[in-house]
Amino acid sequence: MRIYFDHAASSPLRKEVLEAFSSENSLNLYNPSSVHFEGQKTRAKINDIRDVISGFLECNSENIVFTSSGTESCNYVINSALYTAEIENIVYLPTEHSAVLDTISSKSINRISCKMDKHGKIDLLSLDSTLASLSGKTLVCVMLVNNETGLIQPILDIASVCEKHGALLFSDMIQAIGKLNIAEYIRVCDYATFAAHKIGGLQGTGLAYLKDQKKVYKDLYGGEQEFGRRAGTENVTGIIAFGTAMEACIGSSAYESECVALLHERLIGGIKDISKEIIIPAINSDKENSITTLIFPGLKSENLIIGMDMNNIAVSAGAACSSGKIGGSHVLKSLKYDTNHVNGAIRVSFGWNNTLDQVDYFIKVLNNLLQGMNFKF
Amino acid sequence: MRIYFDHAASSPLRKEVLEAFSSENSLNLYNPSSVHFEGQKTRAKINDIRDVISGFLECNSENIVFTSSGTESCNYVINSALYTAEIENIVYLPTEHSAVLDTISSKSINRISCKMDKHGKIDLLSLDSTLASLSGKTLVCVMLVNNETGLIQPILDIASVCEKHGALLFSDMIQAIGKLNIAEYIRVCDYATFAAHKIGGLQGTGLAYLKDQKKVYKDLYGGEQEFGRRAGTENVTGIIAFGTAMEACIGSSAYESECVALLHERLIGGIKDISKEIIIPAINSDKENSITTLIFPGLKSENLIIGMDMNNIAVSAGAACSSGKIGGSHVLKSLKYDTNHVNGAIRVSFGWNNTLDQVDYFIKVLNNLLQGMNFKF
Repeated sequence: MRIYFDHAASSPLRKEVLEAFSSENSLNLYNPSSVHFEGQKTRAKINDIRDVISGFLECNSENIVFTSSGTESCNYVINSALYTAEIENIVYLPTEHSAVLDTISSKSINRISCKMDKHGKIDLLSLDSTLASLSGKTLVCVMLVNNETGLIQPILDIASVCEKHGALLFSDMIQAIGKLNIAEYIRVCDYATFAAHKIGGLQGTGLAYLKDQKKVYKDLYGGEQEFGRRAGTENVTGIIAFGTAMEACIGSSAYESECVALLHERLIGGIKDISKEIIIPAINSDKENSITTLIFPGLKSENLIIGMDMNNIAVSAGAACSSGKIGGSHVLKSLKYDTNHVNGAIRVSFGWNNTLDQVDYFIKVLNNLLQGMNFKF
Repeated sequence: MRIYFDHAASSPLRKEVLEAFSSENSLNLYNPSSVHFEGQKTRAKINDIRDVISGFLECNSENIVFTSSGTESCNYVINSALYTAEIENIVYLPTEHSAVLDTISSKSINRISCKMDKHGKIDLLSLDSTLASLSGKTLVCVMLVNNETGLIQPILDIASVCEKHGALLFSDMIQAIGKLNIAEYIRVCDYATFAAHKIGGLQGTGLAYLKDQKKVYKDLYGGEQEFGRRAGTENVTGIIAFGTAMEACIGSSAYESECVALLHERLIGGIKDISKEIIIPAINSDKENSITTLIFPGLKSENLIIGMDMNNIAVSAGAACSSGKIGGSHVLKSLKYDTNHVNGAIRVSFGWNNTLDQVDYFIKVLNNLLQGMNFKF
């Protein structure tokens, strides 16, 4: 029996999604642009899902664009902002996901990294003075829940500062959905992004929220899908799975959040019992319970991950999509952790199928591993 | 019982794909970039599929990039050529798919529409003289099998002309796979594109073939997926379905091609028996049997499609993805058909689940519809 503590990389398919595809031919879908019965039935399914999701986000169905990933969504909203809002400056946090950082880096634009406190929380005074100093339209990019540390940014306060200076706000909410009340944050943002596989949908489906849907920008040319915003036949299966997973995830979010809070409490307690030398970034700040990074100074992340894996526990060293990249977590580096810390970090992320017994087992295995690795307790 | 004659828009899921996802948890996949067991098992599945597909295409696994659609693939290869091969001119046929035409139109580049004969076949002498007249690197874009008329372009001859002038060749092979020997054409092309749902896979997965994989271009920024070419967690379900569908489709292509040839023969015979006034574009040229456009001068496509749909037959008016666009088929217009013809066209496209009885029924229904619509026989 495996224990899966890597929900932030990909959360296992929810049973509701499996059920949605369990009847014969439920996977057999057609081209939603076709005029005939098969096409229109498929179109109706997409429209239903769009209504369900826009209902949860408390926006209009025209405000959402289905994409192929969270990454594409982040690329799209930044490109869209640059094109439709004539953005001249981008203010961002160095702890953003690489989908945001690398997209920003690819642009010939004035880029300003915003100051943070030692936990990674945005420095609102610095944001205020930065925005006051800039001329031309500015886009501010701040992730709601950090995908490595779980730190929650004060989006409502950030939005107030942005509004004061006429800046647009984009928040990557990929790790926040089902955990925080998304609609409350969507309301104050100009752009937001989501990904299906982080909430128990399928890999390969993302979503971009755009407050202003009047001016149309497209990255992909061809057909007029997604209100002319994204050409290409829709990923019908992925969209149905996304809507079904979101319905399940938001429907049970109160219960799941309570469970995850208990898991987190047990995890932190267990860690502190093992050793005071284990560092937990953002633990003394506003942190989401489902995502926790643990730093073991002097140890190697890969050894811990392999050791855990051999004991049937899946954890990661940080963002999965960075695994092809050289060097440790840019998030931890930007929080001023040294190489000794960055190289010894693992991420534990909880979700809908985890239990307290699993946390207890994890703590036991971790203790054993640390003994064998000569960790300095 | 419905009759589905719109395989060119989306071919129903092959039973092999349904079988691949029929076992419990077969849809439950993980992030292939994760280092743990779950991630590596998912990575292995993608690698297997990449090997299967590159085997069929007789290329290396590094030559293929999974994308989210045929449209994205077409956008990607054109962007990639412009960036990595410093293309200064694009020569194309006006009968290309909108994913190619609209992408080309979006570029500030020298664009030259190549001459064709009345059936839509490329004028090789014109291509030769055009390429001779151009300075700077040129990309030639020619679809292998036209998605509306079924016309087959002489890619091998086109490749010879391109080679003579040092031009690069991109062929959209989205409608050709399983019908022609793709590997033979891939060998002479620099770029090619494919889409899963045209061969009985899922909507939302495409593939780009790149002969030269040394210089890396990316449209999407973030992770290092697809050899650094396309950031974003892979659409694992879609990729598995794509490989499974391709295996099934290529494995039975000899048999299916024979069946489709019989269906086509019966269709054309039946059409000729109804009226000599019905026009069949490209019928006197090199045409693929699975895709046929029928023109009923003076009638309205939509009335015919609705009439067919009410008789449980699914056909289309042309490319499904053009359905959101105003005006008739740009393919028929470029073949110099007048409005009276363009507005009265339907596309019939066959695939793996069609039978001769279905064609007979279609002909009977068509005859009845035409009587009721006062068609000039």
